[in-house]
Amino acid sequence: MGKKITTRSSDINGCTVKIGIIGLGTVGTGTVGVLLSHQKEIERRLGGRLKLKTICSRTIHKRDLSWMGQKVETTSDWKQVVNDPDIDVVVELVGKPRTSLSIARKTLKNGKHLVTANKFLVAEHGVELFRLSQQKDVSLGIEACVAGGTPVLHAIREGLAGEEFLAIHGILNGTTNYILTEMERRGCSYLEALSEAQQNGYAEPNPTFDVEGYDARYKIAILSMICFGSLVKVNDIPVQGITRIEPVDFAYAARLGRTIRLMAGAIRKPSRKLEISTGPLMVSQDSILANVSGSNMGLVLVGEKGGTTLYSGEGAGGDPTGVAVISDVVGIARLILAGASSKVFLGYKSWHPFKVVNPEERSRKAYVRFIVRDRPGILADAAGILARHKINIDSVLQEPGMPRKRTVFVMTLEPTPGKRLRKAVQQIQKLPSLATPPLVIPFADPL
Amino acid sequence: MGKKITTRSSDINGCTVKIGIIGLGTVGTGTVGVLLSHQKEIERRLGGRLKLKTICSRTIHKRDLSWMGQKVETTSDWKQVVNDPDIDVVVELVGKPRTSLSIARKTLKNGKHLVTANKFLVAEHGVELFRLSQQKDVSLGIEACVAGGTPVLHAIREGLAGEEFLAIHGILNGTTNYILTEMERRGCSYLEALSEAQQNGYAEPNPTFDVEGYDARYKIAILSMICFGSLVKVNDIPVQGITRIEPVDFAYAARLGRTIRLMAGAIRKPSRKLEISTGPLMVSQDSILANVSGSNMGLVLVGEKGGTTLYSGEGAGGDPTGVAVISDVVGIARLILAGASSKVFLGYKSWHPFKVVNPEERSRKAYVRFIVRDRPGILADAAGILARHKINIDSVLQEPGMPRKRTVFVMTLEPTPGKRLRKAVQQIQKLPSLATPPLVIPFADPL
Repeated sequence: MGKKITTRSSDINGCTVKIGIIGLGTVGTGTVGVLLSHQKEIERRLGGRLKLKTICSRTIHKRDLSWMGQKVETTSDWKQVVNDPDIDVVVELVGKPRTSLSIARKTLKNGKHLVTANKFLVAEHGVELFRLSQQKDVSLGIEACVAGGTPVLHAIREGLAGEEFLAIHGILNGTTNYILTEMERRGCSYLEALSEAQQNGYAEPNPTFDVEGYDARYKIAILSMICFGSLVKVNDIPVQGITRIEPVDFAYAARLGRTIRLMAGAIRKPSRKLEISTGPLMVSQDSILANVSGSNMGLVLVGEKGGTTLYSGEGAGGDPTGVAVISDVVGIARLILAGASSKVFLGYKSWHPFKVVNPEERSRKAYVRFIVRDRPGILADAAGILARHKINIDSVLQEPGMPRKRTVFVMTLEPTPGKRLRKAVQQIQKLPSLATPPLVIPFADPL
Repeated sequence: MGKKITTRSSDINGCTVKIGIIGLGTVGTGTVGVLLSHQKEIERRLGGRLKLKTICSRTIHKRDLSWMGQKVETTSDWKQVVNDPDIDVVVELVGKPRTSLSIARKTLKNGKHLVTANKFLVAEHGVELFRLSQQKDVSLGIEACVAGGTPVLHAIREGLAGEEFLAIHGILNGTTNYILTEMERRGCSYLEALSEAQQNGYAEPNPTFDVEGYDARYKIAILSMICFGSLVKVNDIPVQGITRIEPVDFAYAARLGRTIRLMAGAIRKPSRKLEISTGPLMVSQDSILANVSGSNMGLVLVGEKGGTTLYSGEGAGGDPTGVAVISDVVGIARLILAGASSKVFLGYKSWHPFKVVNPEERSRKAYVRFIVRDRPGILADAAGILARHKINIDSVLQEPGMPRKRTVFVMTLEPTPGKRLRKAVQQIQKLPSLATPPLVIPFADPL
């Protein structure tokens, strides 16, 4: 590779960068479409040529590729792609974690550039892959892992390469944002909104990965890595999903001038600590992120010198993610054409382990919603338990006209350390008149 | 330079990239501050060292640089910086257009990398400078020219390198956005808001460059260049300022569910045409850009495959602009450390002339505000003139309780070609009962 590159750089306009794509699902198809339809414009920018040499899919024999309007080599064996000496860039768009990891390792070991859209791969094995790419002097493109067609990783690594970040906050998962904004807008139930999201292609048939917050957790892990140069174990990051949120929570949130969003955030603390978590928060209605609606994503970066910047757009889908993939391919092609090594592309030359601090250790205001069988005394009992834990009640709210079978009321609590609140709630949970465990949603810090 | 780079790339960790900064105004001081306070973190990312070798300012003998806490060479002669064989990157932050152009040309001709925050320079001479940098195989960093600390040019050129753009729209000038949002929020006059902006450092003592839209026009010219690879003459772009807008216009706008913002936009049309302009528009209150308030900027990119993305943040100021400057320096340092030539950095290898199409040729709804001496008949006269020009009135609005001396009323017009409307307004303007010429503000297309 090294020699080939040097020769090429001397004659840029005659030069072709060859691509192999592995995986032809939604993102794979989107990626091929973006490449083919923007090829002319991209080549005008590059001053060189891009050639899609090979497409690999396990089901390639069943696929109709006539829509591509051009011939391309096909295979159902990914090893043929990563071992092809003629291919410069391997685009890995395979869903399965283990296959994806094997492809990534083999690609880099073979001295080829790698572009991936697999957030699991980067969140769990990113540092191994970054180090491998450095050793082999090839590039690792990961823009498609975080926010589809909104280029937040490029903004962090290149546009703000001179910034030091204090914090990142964001709505990183389009599925849950679609569900929550539909619940807010129409007052429908979680299950209704989920089923609609599934019908519209915004949610998977098995939605667990999205609605339990795991997708957002992978993304905040990657963002923390890129923003702070931190090594964080994904499983150390606290995560909470949205499945217990009900329409009544939006009604109470509105009375408090707030709404509910699944937020992921990381705040840099002294001595290499990161306060980091994923879960629903009560967000002020006039905060910039509250206005990110539907399946869009939104990310706020807080810089030490440049202040707060917002990035918002489509966070998923074949075409937007394909734009991110091809943008990484173009970046790599620019380096190949310029005769550069990969070292340009990396966020950090040295990574540091960071300790994850659970925001539970911090004092925050909180919203606690109770659903009780219609029995008197529950309010006094709950208030008593809170008082014994030295937790001050800020307000008690009860909407009139709720269904009779169950009574819903809400307490907002003055800033309370998360741990203490959790213990109090565990006691309250044992009260016999509760129909379901209380739902706690912390208030977001002002953004 | 070429040889030096090659030698360096073999031993990255011991390598230092040397910087000379010319100009020590607000942005220069901010840039030095960003570099010094983030140096350690940046070097951790780079795996190499940055050294601020020389600072040049005409008033350097009067400047106290003790706050820097380190020694640096100083000079009042910019030629010493651009001719110093030891300096790799020249940062040009001089206000004066002619000096700035001389510095830029000489820097590139001497084979040094250039970073500039001068939008005039890039909008008027960008293509010359890009070509010169290509010939000399050095980089040209221009991020600081458009949106301060919001890295929109990196988003376009790198993060969305695989996208084809259909349109760009934005609030690109923080001064006018501050004035307009204050007028909207507090109902104060243009002059009151301007004087407050001047007191708070958001407006220059001579505000013409901002309030007449020239600053936004330079920025949309640069954005069009980078998005579309277009050669556009700045003076061909229509421009309108905000000085004639009154508090009453915000009151009427609110009745129409809209607000007023100084927007700059460019839409790509077939056969290498760009519809491009800068001026106030009636923007829907729930559009994403209407929520960009105060001195912030906001840019919407419309991509062919990735859809709409929004970028918002501080658009000016010493520190945010310093972040943009230093981010470009880091990008160049990465290339130097990786042994790459500059070819990586450019938007387009080939530029095309685009014809500017005035949006006047398009049919748009419009808001027309009349201030008349209290005489009957004006409404009929104006309506008659509009009818003779085949312009349909959509609604007529008149707020009660306006001052007696002058009557204000507003017409909204059905979509009308701009030229026809202009001719009609020219006739209406001659009516004797008008106190001031009518103010026309087109409605923005939905965003």
